[in-house]
Amino acid sequence: MVYIGDSKEDGFLRTVAWKHGSVVLIDQTKLPNKLEYIKFDNYEQVANAIKNMVVRGAPAIGVSAAFGLALAATRSNSRTLEELFAEMYKAYEILRSTRPTAVNLVWALERVMKRAREQNNIVAVKKATLEEALKMSEEDIQNNRQMGINGACLIEEGDVILTHCNAGSLATVGYGTALGVIRAANEAGKHIRVIATETRPVMQGSRLTTFELQHDGIDVSLIPDTAAGYMMSSRKIKRVIVGADRVLRTGHVFNKIGTYQVAAIANLHKIPFHVAAPLSTFDLDSNPSDIVIEERPVEEVVKIAGNRIAPQGIRVFNPAFDLTPPEFISSIITERGVLQPPFEESLKKILS
Amino acid sequence: MVYIGDSKEDGFLRTVAWKHGSVVLIDQTKLPNKLEYIKFDNYEQVANAIKNMVVRGAPAIGVSAAFGLALAATRSNSRTLEELFAEMYKAYEILRSTRPTAVNLVWALERVMKRAREQNNIVAVKKATLEEALKMSEEDIQNNRQMGINGACLIEEGDVILTHCNAGSLATVGYGTALGVIRAANEAGKHIRVIATETRPVMQGSRLTTFELQHDGIDVSLIPDTAAGYMMSSRKIKRVIVGADRVLRTGHVFNKIGTYQVAAIANLHKIPFHVAAPLSTFDLDSNPSDIVIEERPVEEVVKIAGNRIAPQGIRVFNPAFDLTPPEFISSIITERGVLQPPFEESLKKILS
Repeated sequence: MVYIGDSKEDGFLRTVAWKHGSVVLIDQTKLPNKLEYIKFDNYEQVANAIKNMVVRGAPAIGVSAAFGLALAATRSNSRTLEELFAEMYKAYEILRSTRPTAVNLVWALERVMKRAREQNNIVAVKKATLEEALKMSEEDIQNNRQMGINGACLIEEGDVILTHCNAGSLATVGYGTALGVIRAANEAGKHIRVIATETRPVMQGSRLTTFELQHDGIDVSLIPDTAAGYMMSSRKIKRVIVGADRVLRTGHVFNKIGTYQVAAIANLHKIPFHVAAPLSTFDLDSNPSDIVIEERPVEEVVKIAGNRIAPQGIRVFNPAFDLTPPEFISSIITERGVLQPPFEESLKKILS
Repeated sequence: MVYIGDSKEDGFLRTVAWKHGSVVLIDQTKLPNKLEYIKFDNYEQVANAIKNMVVRGAPAIGVSAAFGLALAATRSNSRTLEELFAEMYKAYEILRSTRPTAVNLVWALERVMKRAREQNNIVAVKKATLEEALKMSEEDIQNNRQMGINGACLIEEGDVILTHCNAGSLATVGYGTALGVIRAANEAGKHIRVIATETRPVMQGSRLTTFELQHDGIDVSLIPDTAAGYMMSSRKIKRVIVGADRVLRTGHVFNKIGTYQVAAIANLHKIPFHVAAPLSTFDLDSNPSDIVIEERPVEEVVKIAGNRIAPQGIRVFNPAFDLTPPEFISSIITERGVLQPPFEESLKKILS
């Protein structure tokens, strides 16, 4: 079922919402050609939407999964608490298994389950589950606005800022992380220009970042991923800002494939490279080698809009993420403040 | 007019040929879905084919332009030598203006014109023009075979070799420069695997390199351009080989957009980075800042196979080439031998 929502209420796109007992998501696979909202009535549909990238971006995935769990709870016909929890754990597992690399997914599901486990009857569990998901949804926007305020100080008047992938409204409930910082700098009256990389293979840059910045009236230009190095070596880029799918305590950042090479070239040219990530994206326990890099389907690379662009039977490597080491990162912008290297120490400070 | 040629005669694809008084080119815009040959009867058609990338790759462009000039001469109805030369200079200008960055184009046209100017009657000019173009066509394959022999020594058993864009049979008359080295190593019995980058926006990697290596039975895998850094940082690449559109006396290399960032990351990880380029690709006179980097049409970036992948009205930067400095280049393979740094000196030696 298709539901055309109102994107004007916030001034930015609202990517994930709870409306009249259902989850409503922008169908990002249709962008930039169509802004279409889809209504979901059960968690299996939400899990499929995450898997098929109808919704993507670590924070947006987290809140979508939380709402998926809320659907599982609120729509359950279970007559006992045990039955309800069994259903919810099944939903938890199915939602958790959709994408392996982003940490927000597990963080969001854990947080909802924790709140649910604190209740002692069916009505209370259903109510608490939905309340927690709604709270996370609102917190996401608030955190993004606060990150925007914190990060906007780093942006200078006239900056030309390269961003990779989409860490915008469309990667969050709304406002965005990296693009939230850009939005906040823009709202503060700074004249900035954004260079968006296409971000093959799924093209979140060409399809989503250009779309949402154009939607908000922020100056944006598109480049192929292959031109990022050239743009930096020819001094056309003043600054890079990206989001993150998982940040380790050491400041190692897992983000969209291609982030590593952009960061390395920025470092070579002494161009500041910032990561904007809410604390829900931090994984304080893992080491770099613990993290599974998701390998996405071959079809993403060999087909575009149904057209084959590579011969039949060609072997493809399609890793969805890569790892950027802390030595290439100038600062990490969070809702509690801007972390400077060494990140392990500055992170301890803001968490204490 | 469409002409289906025989690609089996050489064991590799013959990209540019002169047949029965016409120029025959593989239509590379149709690959990998269709191997189609087009016959050209006048130089304007050849100029359009170069501009629209029916044929591309510096050496292939050079020989195609030479054949274009041969068409202008051999099909001319001029009654005086002056008239014939006027026609040929017009053809020269139109062919020369198709692509600004590759040096082989000017080199090839100059060489044919020089030979023509040495003649003193119409019949001799027509004959000499065609002879020179045919000679260049054969030399191209011989040079590529010799480069292959020279470069194959650099390849080790079991190497996994990353290549960017297409510097293969399809970028030359046949056999290829960078892929010629790979072909020669393969013919020498070395077991190698090739990783081809897609090479946005025109996708010479996914469309052409995979196609021609699959055609020749050489092991090839495809990756998005965004995964090149990840593949190198995770130690999956042993060596990089690319072609060149223009090599300066200092060893500065102009090549397909994206080469610079691959070279920089290879350098970061101490992965040998080789350039394979015949001497016709060398420009001994220019400095890096003299060279015009061609800006290609916006449509290459915002549309794929007629489908829009970016919003209407988005500004695009689409530079076709970038500049790799000599400090990122381990060696330059030519038909006269392998140049080691410092390139200015080693180049002087092989030219003397």
